[in-house]
Amino acid sequence: MIVVKIGGAIGTGIENLVVDLKNYQDYILVHGGSHEMNVISEKIEQPPKFVTSVSGHVSRYTDEATLDVLKMVYSGKVNKSIVESMRKHEINAIGLTGLDGGLLKGKRKEAIRIIENGKRKILRGDNTGRADEVNTELLQLLIDNGYVPVITIPIEAFDGGALNADADRAAAVIAGRMNADTLVILSNVPGLLQDPEKSESLIESIPKGQIENYMEYAKGRMKKKILGASEAMVNGVKKVIISNANLNKPLTEALSGSGTVIE
Amino acid sequence: MIVVKIGGAIGTGIENLVVDLKNYQDYILVHGGSHEMNVISEKIEQPPKFVTSVSGHVSRYTDEATLDVLKMVYSGKVNKSIVESMRKHEINAIGLTGLDGGLLKGKRKEAIRIIENGKRKILRGDNTGRADEVNTELLQLLIDNGYVPVITIPIEAFDGGALNADADRAAAVIAGRMNADTLVILSNVPGLLQDPEKSESLIESIPKGQIENYMEYAKGRMKKKILGASEAMVNGVKKVIISNANLNKPLTEALSGSGTVIE
Repeated sequence: MIVVKIGGAIGTGIENLVVDLKNYQDYILVHGGSHEMNVISEKIEQPPKFVTSVSGHVSRYTDEATLDVLKMVYSGKVNKSIVESMRKHEINAIGLTGLDGGLLKGKRKEAIRIIENGKRKILRGDNTGRADEVNTELLQLLIDNGYVPVITIPIEAFDGGALNADADRAAAVIAGRMNADTLVILSNVPGLLQDPEKSESLIESIPKGQIENYMEYAKGRMKKKILGASEAMVNGVKKVIISNANLNKPLTEALSGSGTVIE
Repeated sequence: MIVVKIGGAIGTGIENLVVDLKNYQDYILVHGGSHEMNVISEKIEQPPKFVTSVSGHVSRYTDEATLDVLKMVYSGKVNKSIVESMRKHEINAIGLTGLDGGLLKGKRKEAIRIIENGKRKILRGDNTGRADEVNTELLQLLIDNGYVPVITIPIEAFDGGALNADADRAAAVIAGRMNADTLVILSNVPGLLQDPEKSESLIESIPKGQIENYMEYAKGRMKKKILGASEAMVNGVKKVIISNANLNKPLTEALSGSGTVIE
């Protein structure tokens, strides 16, 4: 089995990917929607809120109103558009969020210490967490009956309710729990770059045991991908490939060695 | 089996309904979202478009942009909020649109003749249809494995792609194809009223064969409910109840005879 994660910002690349996916049978698709989330948030005048933790980490703050927008964008617009596109190409896609059937569950984040206008404060009410449990029976049931699961956030909190979560790490935990051979993470960059400005600085391969040594090259959203790759490996996934979604055959080219291969 | 249809505009009534649903096992929930659709459309400055056919029938015009908003509202915000609420009450809900797994399919509406500024014209590109086929195997698979399907639009066109469709009539076709005993349609009115302004003018029962005679009392959205009831009966549903969603125990009270009972 292959788990394929695609970013929400790949745009027209989705069409090439869907055509490519027709060559594959046993896979699960996981997707994000962060770019679209920012676009729609601005449109409905609920601009995204970001907070900076005392350790300097910047993250999205997900209050109830943001959670509503998240549901609209990830599980409404992006998920259904991908499902629609796949079905037009005769792939028997079924779209689910982590909430549906308790597909993805995780721990709600505790109150976080942030810095706001130079002052430290404690921030509560952040509906965020990290996917940890997967309803593998539901996924297997659907796959055994000929459906291709197309999965996105929100996830479900152990104590109930929807949570924002990182989709790269959700894909990693799905790959691990489903005993996937390979996790392919496709986005709008060629892979892990030594210099984010230079695509020719691509790191082509990373030995499994040495991921930590390469964390220094991961900037911004790439950090979550490398963390996801590392977690997938710990959960028994044999190979993780981080590659470009905007290729002619994004999955086939990734599996043929384009991008950064960790194994 | 019972199919329960709830309007998208019932608001806080959903909490009472979910608590009530805990007393039931074998049911499918179908929901709308028309009210929320209008609210969000205004917010993102894509105000809903309505057209008037030459026969005087007013309907929503669903271009591609409207379809995106429809996906966001129905399958994102409303569906996931209902699923979230049900799961908080330990109901094993799973949310699906008609697109997912080809759950609901129908014929795309042909070009329609409308009147605009007093002039007749032909309008194309209306992504609208009527649910006709139901993937009963998928619903049965989920039900047999302990899940409660929570279903909404869009549906899938026979020629591919998402379509807007009436959710009352979708519920009716689901009830028919799933051989449900009863279809319960809950909304923010007590049932079919002889005078829409007077709740005491409730028509308590309609004999199965006489639905047509009562069409004259159905105004606005009630028309679709009566049409849905009629279609459900044709498809073998024994009883249709149109009742108020804003009661203490909306489903139990409907099944006890509150509202309009057609059988």
